[in-house]
Amino acid sequence: MNEVIETILAHRSIRKFKDKPLSEEMVTTLVKCAQSASTSSYQQVCTIIGIDDREKKEKLAELAGNQSYVADNGYFFVFCMDYNRHMIAAEMKEAEIFETIESTEAFIVGTVDAALAAQNLSVAAESLGLGIVYIGGIRNRLKEVSDLLGCPEHVLPLFGVAVGYPDANPGKKPRLPLPAVFHKNNYQSTEETKDWLTQYEKETSEYYTERTGGKRTEGWVTQITGSMASPKRTYMKDFVRSKGLNKS
Amino acid sequence: MNEVIETILAHRSIRKFKDKPLSEEMVTTLVKCAQSASTSSYQQVCTIIGIDDREKKEKLAELAGNQSYVADNGYFFVFCMDYNRHMIAAEMKEAEIFETIESTEAFIVGTVDAALAAQNLSVAAESLGLGIVYIGGIRNRLKEVSDLLGCPEHVLPLFGVAVGYPDANPGKKPRLPLPAVFHKNNYQSTEETKDWLTQYEKETSEYYTERTGGKRTEGWVTQITGSMASPKRTYMKDFVRSKGLNKS
Repeated sequence: MNEVIETILAHRSIRKFKDKPLSEEMVTTLVKCAQSASTSSYQQVCTIIGIDDREKKEKLAELAGNQSYVADNGYFFVFCMDYNRHMIAAEMKEAEIFETIESTEAFIVGTVDAALAAQNLSVAAESLGLGIVYIGGIRNRLKEVSDLLGCPEHVLPLFGVAVGYPDANPGKKPRLPLPAVFHKNNYQSTEETKDWLTQYEKETSEYYTERTGGKRTEGWVTQITGSMASPKRTYMKDFVRSKGLNKS
Repeated sequence: MNEVIETILAHRSIRKFKDKPLSEEMVTTLVKCAQSASTSSYQQVCTIIGIDDREKKEKLAELAGNQSYVADNGYFFVFCMDYNRHMIAAEMKEAEIFETIESTEAFIVGTVDAALAAQNLSVAAESLGLGIVYIGGIRNRLKEVSDLLGCPEHVLPLFGVAVGYPDANPGKKPRLPLPAVFHKNNYQSTEETKDWLTQYEKETSEYYTERTGGKRTEGWVTQITGSMASPKRTYMKDFVRSKGLNKS
């Protein structure tokens, strides 16, 4: 165990921050950490839009489903898949690269690049005593978010990360049993998966029962299949295609 | 600056490892770190397949384009987007969730979940003095990789991470200038992007010229537009759809 592993294992999402902005120096350090992550074939497909403008933060909070911590935090980062840069580079070199950029493969590359960068930023922030929470909610009304931030074609805001001085100390919900998510040399059998899910349902049911004094008793299996029963953000396919991404 | 930030900023990909396997304890610690990452709406969409079977490693190395370090390392992890677990959960609860799972939105969620987990594992590995390299090459022949690992429908191997004791000390290529990837409150103008790309082309051209004694002089803009001119892995859209993902 070292400081790095301790920081990583201590992670929990923070949804209440003190009214204290990050210093400019901290923001720069965090962005440098983000940029230090691996990138597929040196393509560097991630752009980060840093938001400290109060009005924009409030608008983003509204678009993300009125999550107050999108506005009230120390700093807000929006992570984007960005192939606009490559399109401009191609124009400078009179090259044609849109077939690459429009592909499903490039959509995977861009999403991974942005997520690796974001996780570096998050771990670095936590090492400085800050708290973080990922905001997938910016995808609730992504066209409006994209317009608000002035994102051109081939740029897709993927998620936000709110960072700040923690003003809450939430518990940690139990994760799936390790053998359910870590298979050896071969994907595990359906029977094994079922067994782990049954065990996990029991464990999370007990966890919720205890935490809510019996008001809530359903475990992860019940909860997740309930929440996944209605598809969300069903406009996404068309919107992403309208941005010139994930088309072919 | 602390140990965490130092570890993150010191990252470089390692492509040559000593012939020494990771201890089982190390592997478990790394997977726990991976599992500690944020996950969208508690969905936990990532499954890791750990590969220590020599024959499978060699087959994977071949499928990834004969990259020797896919076979020769301390341990090899394959990160998968995994909605098979949720499908089994839904069956247990007689719920219908395939519309959610087949969506572009779910494809983003699953890719992000897997990448966050992988970056935690990578940073943790580096903190232990190990080296890592991401292997997007497993997507060269993804159907064969998926079959080799026995991945069912709704499971998509996304990339590998080779981990091991470093046997090389490579340099670090210059990344894009920070203001090119970090915009403030609004996506930057095309003129600004062009200026940064022009500066970066010069910087990387000088870097390569010096490193190769003048044999190679082209910078990032030239290199990347050249490498992106031919689309890669063009089968991806159909393959991903055949797995029941990224369809709607």
